[in-house]
Amino acid sequence: MVPGYDAAMTEDDLIARCFAPIAGPDALGLRDDAALTRIPEGHELVVTKDALVGGVHFFNEDPPASIARKALRVNVSDLAAKGADPHGFLLALALPRGTAETFVIDFAHALGADAQQFGIPLLGGDTVSTPGPLMVSITALGRVPTGRMVPRTGVQPGDRIYVSGTIGDAALGLQVRLDPSFGQKLSSTQLDHLLSRYLEPQPRLALAHAMRSFAHGGMDVSDGLVGDLSKMLRASGVGATIRLADVPLSDAATAMAVDEKAFVTAMTGGDDYELLAAVPPAQAAAFEAAASAAGIAVTLIGEASATRDIVMQGRKGEPQAFSTQSFSHF
Amino acid sequence: MVPGYDAAMTEDDLIARCFAPIAGPDALGLRDDAALTRIPEGHELVVTKDALVGGVHFFNEDPPASIARKALRVNVSDLAAKGADPHGFLLALALPRGTAETFVIDFAHALGADAQQFGIPLLGGDTVSTPGPLMVSITALGRVPTGRMVPRTGVQPGDRIYVSGTIGDAALGLQVRLDPSFGQKLSSTQLDHLLSRYLEPQPRLALAHAMRSFAHGGMDVSDGLVGDLSKMLRASGVGATIRLADVPLSDAATAMAVDEKAFVTAMTGGDDYELLAAVPPAQAAAFEAAASAAGIAVTLIGEASATRDIVMQGRKGEPQAFSTQSFSHF
Repeated sequence: MVPGYDAAMTEDDLIARCFAPIAGPDALGLRDDAALTRIPEGHELVVTKDALVGGVHFFNEDPPASIARKALRVNVSDLAAKGADPHGFLLALALPRGTAETFVIDFAHALGADAQQFGIPLLGGDTVSTPGPLMVSITALGRVPTGRMVPRTGVQPGDRIYVSGTIGDAALGLQVRLDPSFGQKLSSTQLDHLLSRYLEPQPRLALAHAMRSFAHGGMDVSDGLVGDLSKMLRASGVGATIRLADVPLSDAATAMAVDEKAFVTAMTGGDDYELLAAVPPAQAAAFEAAASAAGIAVTLIGEASATRDIVMQGRKGEPQAFSTQSFSHF
Repeated sequence: MVPGYDAAMTEDDLIARCFAPIAGPDALGLRDDAALTRIPEGHELVVTKDALVGGVHFFNEDPPASIARKALRVNVSDLAAKGADPHGFLLALALPRGTAETFVIDFAHALGADAQQFGIPLLGGDTVSTPGPLMVSITALGRVPTGRMVPRTGVQPGDRIYVSGTIGDAALGLQVRLDPSFGQKLSSTQLDHLLSRYLEPQPRLALAHAMRSFAHGGMDVSDGLVGDLSKMLRASGVGATIRLADVPLSDAATAMAVDEKAFVTAMTGGDDYELLAAVPPAQAAAFEAAASAAGIAVTLIGEASATRDIVMQGRKGEPQAFSTQSFSHF
């Protein structure tokens, strides 16, 4: 027997009290060895898994509700990028010894609310104790009509490259959080915007249908726009000209990006959880209309080309190189 | 950027060099946001997830190959208990900073060999760094013909209760490992048997077909026979009489269980990864024959009853109570 993190709570208690109430019907009450679920005929299963570690992917002092939301949403973002509808998720939660029961209750409550919001029921998982920091690993299951997943490798020459929402907020929010002096010229509304974008991503699930209807290729921006977009283009064997001046920035990011270093952070910093979509010109109007109907802004930032050259045009129109293209957790 | 655990290795390198070679075709080369897989018509998806933490579920000094095998096998064991055929798995790996590349190579190599042995291809996952201990979380996907999953809740009065293999070896192996004086009367072969059963479980996947063909209810024994069997009976709303004298023990466990405390450890200690099956009397002969054909020993240890009383008959035939019925990681 390993020393408990809360003598009053067994693992079974914790599951029964915190997680069973938020579980979906396929979870079998979280009382079996596994969950049982059915993928509708004519559909394929899309699966993704992301792990978040305290002190690496979030701050140990972040509210449990925010940690829960981030952990689920980064996975939902992957499903959205693939054009998949959420089907369910599994949770592995490693709790530091001494974690208070209220922490777990708040975590589970927020997770349950998010699961409802995004229509992705909890199917099962595992809760363990750890001598290390909190770790949350979520496996998300989605479904797409057969043959309709949007791959990273599908970009074709001539495709228009779109990005959703605004880029750079989360990376700048992290920077401000680490060193508040970076944000001294911002209004409190602007500061809140950046900080909250880092703390709680907004997955663009409402774009999933438009993605699978109109995009040749897509991915979500988790490790920085420049690096992730380059990865997608290379995986597709195409090049592109990207106009960084056209990359959508929030008011707050625009204010900070007056400084070129902050602009580079915005373009390469990561944690955006916006979507990149490569859409053939003939479908561009339909894609834009579908995004608009879904309430998600999408912005044209460039075009794919048959050459394998990836040209990032800086804000002055000249090719811009980046020493670090994307965020790496290593 | 978080300080790397090996300056020479980026996450992409690590995936390309260590994990892409062991990935299945549905993993899309581990280069997309998600894996894409198809569940054959007429089948349901069985999903399970287990997390293992260094210093809790394994020793930090255990060989990486053993940690990899244990992490995969405890999940395969869950699939087997549900009568499911393996379909694929996702891996979340949190590596302590400073982990040597050779560690990851050995881990991945063993994982790949096990994945082949059990027919469960790697579909995807996530690799992150952690300031804490090594953590491995695996989500395993299996498939069963629709309606054929073996639930924990399916035990019926009159069902015969079988257990596979031998019970208690892993718990006694852990005890010997923590305090070698416990094993001083054992031969080196016996010691090796106990230690290896703790280090590397042997999931009874070969029984999966017999489970779904003949068992009303089933689960795997991961947290101790007495506690897990009691859970299954309670979940099914039945009682049982269980003859602990009939619980199969290895030579090594038999030698240790001369001591009553060691016997209690064997019955309640956990990490067995054997299967419990509740089989109706009319199917018992067929179940035994199928197990025999699969090369897995199964032993009758009791019968389920319509009363809700769970009677564990000790080795002298008297009802035996246990102060701790099963292992808890909390």
